Amino acid sequence: MTGRLAIVGIGPGAAELVTPLATETLAAATDLVGYGPYLARVPERPGQKRHASDNREELARAREALALAVLGRNVAVVSSGDPGVFAMASAMFEAIETGLEAWKSIEVTVVPGVSAMFAAAAKAGAPLGHDFCVISLSDNLKPWDLVLKRLEAAAVADFVIVLYNPASKARPWQLGEALDLIGRYRASDAPVIFARAVTQADEHIELTTLGRADPSRGDMRTIIIVGSSATKLISRGAGEPFVYTPRHVELAET
Amino acid sequence: MTGRLAIVGIGPGAAELVTPLATETLAAATDLVGYGPYLARVPERPGQKRHASDNREELARAREALALAVLGRNVAVVSSGDPGVFAMASAMFEAIETGLEAWKSIEVTVVPGVSAMFAAAAKAGAPLGHDFCVISLSDNLKPWDLVLKRLEAAAVADFVIVLYNPASKARPWQLGEALDLIGRYRASDAPVIFARAVTQADEHIELTTLGRADPSRGDMRTIIIVGSSATKLISRGAGEPFVYTPRHVELAET
Repeated sequence: MTGRLAIVGIGPGAAELVTPLATETLAAATDLVGYGPYLARVPERPGQKRHASDNREELARAREALALAVLGRNVAVVSSGDPGVFAMASAMFEAIETGLEAWKSIEVTVVPGVSAMFAAAAKAGAPLGHDFCVISLSDNLKPWDLVLKRLEAAAVADFVIVLYNPASKARPWQLGEALDLIGRYRASDAPVIFARAVTQADEHIELTTLGRADPSRGDMRTIIIVGSSATKLISRGAGEPFVYTPRHVELAET
Repeated sequence: MTGRLAIVGIGPGAAELVTPLATETLAAATDLVGYGPYLARVPERPGQKRHASDNREELARAREALALAVLGRNVAVVSSGDPGVFAMASAMFEAIETGLEAWKSIEVTVVPGVSAMFAAAAKAGAPLGHDFCVISLSDNLKPWDLVLKRLEAAAVADFVIVLYNPASKARPWQLGEALDLIGRYRASDAPVIFARAVTQADEHIELTTLGRADPSRGDMRTIIIVGSSATKLISRGAGEPFVYTPRHVELAET
């Protein structure tokens, strides 16, 4: 008897951003698998088993979930944000591809969620209102030269750039180098948003510029949005200005 | 008495992907403003006014919403998917920037939603599991040369590429040219997903390759995801294969 497995996005943090489909899927599961702090966001249910793991053990966690599902359990893998964006979905499919043949017949679904980058953009205004690129700065799983190549391509073509995994204790210098590279192609007054722990209790959104951005402000809970040449600020009475990227680009700007 | 204005993302279509925050914000509004078919997805409430407009009148719609809010109304602007991605948020801030001074003191919030591209990716597997770019093919508001420049940069740097607004009756040839350009840099067997009306009653997800993709299959309700050189298929017993992009890139592939 083969079970089912759902990879469930629970959004960036706030309970009011968890979709009804995610809530229902989590409630119906016999087993929840995930990083401890993400599991802690899911309401407890009697009879439901929880399998918490460390954040860096994505592949091991994926295999544990598949091993439960193949025994007939109804498994939900809990992912923050949207599970398809630098989260659990890709690790799950890697585990399926490289694992037991029986795992390929498990019924697998992905439940999309509100991604941290869109929640961050919403807090700032509409910085992703036009073409954008999304790049992970982690060189744990890819060569740093490839990160630089992609950053340069995105900067030259004037995309708004979203940076995931900007820094960690083991990777302290990558964000500074990335911002320096973008700064070779983009004005120093381009708006930059540091969005940490978006919609969580300790949320901190900081608006700065490319020239003044402090790389030491980035960590694994921070997403960074670097505006394009078209990204603008709108002053308002109280609070930070809105940041938005217009839908249109003038001919002269190309 | 100045009112409030919320730009609310209601997700790609399915009611089960509308967040509780979106549902509450829509329920609390005195006035709903939006494209007719999106408004039709919001449950009716007694006493609440609806202001439906045509899809191409984004700026006029934004101004109408601001004119209501400045009179003290509690306005919700309804946007499909996430409002920050080629949707209403950018048009709203453009209307604020270029409009009456009083509009700048309206309390404006953006309620993020599940974007159509992440819902499409979830149906296919995890094609956005690594660095990706998001590009609108509409040249109504930007020069086609800029679209080509961005497509080429994304293709050269081997990003997964998401195409919004791939074609309309007035823009029938752009998608073919875009796919041809990407094909100069990417193998003809790169996976391509055409996702139309994702999570809606007439949803249609089609998996093909760059070499076999038929540009006439794209329209304004379709999102297209073009895999990178790393994007893979996993066969399974029943149904289409899963499509996923691994989290890691081997050194040799750069």
